[in-house]
Amino acid sequence: MREKKERIDDLEYEGLKIIQRPDWFCFGIDSVILSEYATDIKPNSTVMDLGTGNGILSILLSKKIKAKKIIGIEIQKEVAEMAQRSIVLNKLEDLVTIENLDIRKLKEIQQASSVDAIVSNPPYKEKLTGNPNEETKRAIARHETNATLEDFIEVSQYLLKPYGQFYIVYRPERLVELIVLLRKYNIEPKKMRFVNSKIDKDPKLVVIKAIKGARPFLKVEKPLVIYDNNGDYTKEILEIYHKE
Amino acid sequence: MREKKERIDDLEYEGLKIIQRPDWFCFGIDSVILSEYATDIKPNSTVMDLGTGNGILSILLSKKIKAKKIIGIEIQKEVAEMAQRSIVLNKLEDLVTIENLDIRKLKEIQQASSVDAIVSNPPYKEKLTGNPNEETKRAIARHETNATLEDFIEVSQYLLKPYGQFYIVYRPERLVELIVLLRKYNIEPKKMRFVNSKIDKDPKLVVIKAIKGARPFLKVEKPLVIYDNNGDYTKEILEIYHKE
Repeated sequence: MREKKERIDDLEYEGLKIIQRPDWFCFGIDSVILSEYATDIKPNSTVMDLGTGNGILSILLSKKIKAKKIIGIEIQKEVAEMAQRSIVLNKLEDLVTIENLDIRKLKEIQQASSVDAIVSNPPYKEKLTGNPNEETKRAIARHETNATLEDFIEVSQYLLKPYGQFYIVYRPERLVELIVLLRKYNIEPKKMRFVNSKIDKDPKLVVIKAIKGARPFLKVEKPLVIYDNNGDYTKEILEIYHKE
Repeated sequence: MREKKERIDDLEYEGLKIIQRPDWFCFGIDSVILSEYATDIKPNSTVMDLGTGNGILSILLSKKIKAKKIIGIEIQKEVAEMAQRSIVLNKLEDLVTIENLDIRKLKEIQQASSVDAIVSNPPYKEKLTGNPNEETKRAIARHETNATLEDFIEVSQYLLKPYGQFYIVYRPERLVELIVLLRKYNIEPKKMRFVNSKIDKDPKLVVIKAIKGARPFLKVEKPLVIYDNNGDYTKEILEIYHKE
């Protein structure tokens, strides 16, 4: 039955494909935008993707940066297996590894200060209160059912080398919490960009680049606008999405 | 000599005028934007303007909100005197008081939890290192020569009633520090808006509304754009600036 619910989507980016199950969840524009924001990761970096889900960030980064190694961590076993099959489908086994792990376990098995860069599209919403029926794969990907935002940032502090880079996409309504936690764990926000569906709408996403141990000075960038006034993708979004 | 260097500017807002000395400093668009951001201050509020300078924020707010009392605090004696003369010029003596005080002294003379709303356009830059020639009136208005950002926020926590409102304009490059300090002193950022000179430029200002003791949830608003593509003021800026 599983295969029937799966589909293979062409990412229209250097021939990349991804296996998805819409009944679980599909990748969104947030991951695509974050992958583009992380393209200044230095060549030959060891990169970790915390909460990789169907592997979208790791797969896109395989072509967007010249990494030495990309390691995607995913807590849900069947989701991690699906991501692994996407890696094989794209013949990326030498570059990208998917690990089925709770990010909170990384301290036990991964050396401190061993990672050059971390990317993460973590759950945006707080833990659901009680209803076990809501603990679907989608809910676990979207809510802090397991690791919290603080867990993601705390383990990033442990994993990152000094001046290691940290890239995250998140919701503006929790920006205060995100900034306070980054400062708490000495990962200083250096660059931030809001994403607005249209220029006259409030932003619904924010991407941040932070650096472990860096001095304070934040560059807030012009908004990234998704749709123009005609409802078409803007030039910048088209460039992010497509590369033949 | 003093009067010669002064000029009286028409604010083009309900007949308001302001006395300024360009050799000291003139008010900027930051104060005008902040005054507009603070127009949701409740009627009959006691409002304090921390670091009022030439009084611009207090003067604009006198017509933009229905305050019970507006108190502008200014550390520089001659600047405070000039602000006071603007209050008299506008016949606002019954509504607006200017006090020549270091905001750090407010704890000694003002009751705790006695203020409904605080507005502030504090110095944006860190303390100058050493050169006493740079301690001009302009430098003191722009740099943390006396009170720091933390002093402004700490005294605001002391002054504000529970759920009292706090409005600030600041530079994006120090946004992390601002947010961390607001959270530290339990004044939760609730609303934030960046100000971009043009839509395709990075923002150079940010305004924040925070509420003492409120629950976390930040609304980031669409950017406030100053100039359109022809280099003219946008409609929104014209509406903020002018009211006959």
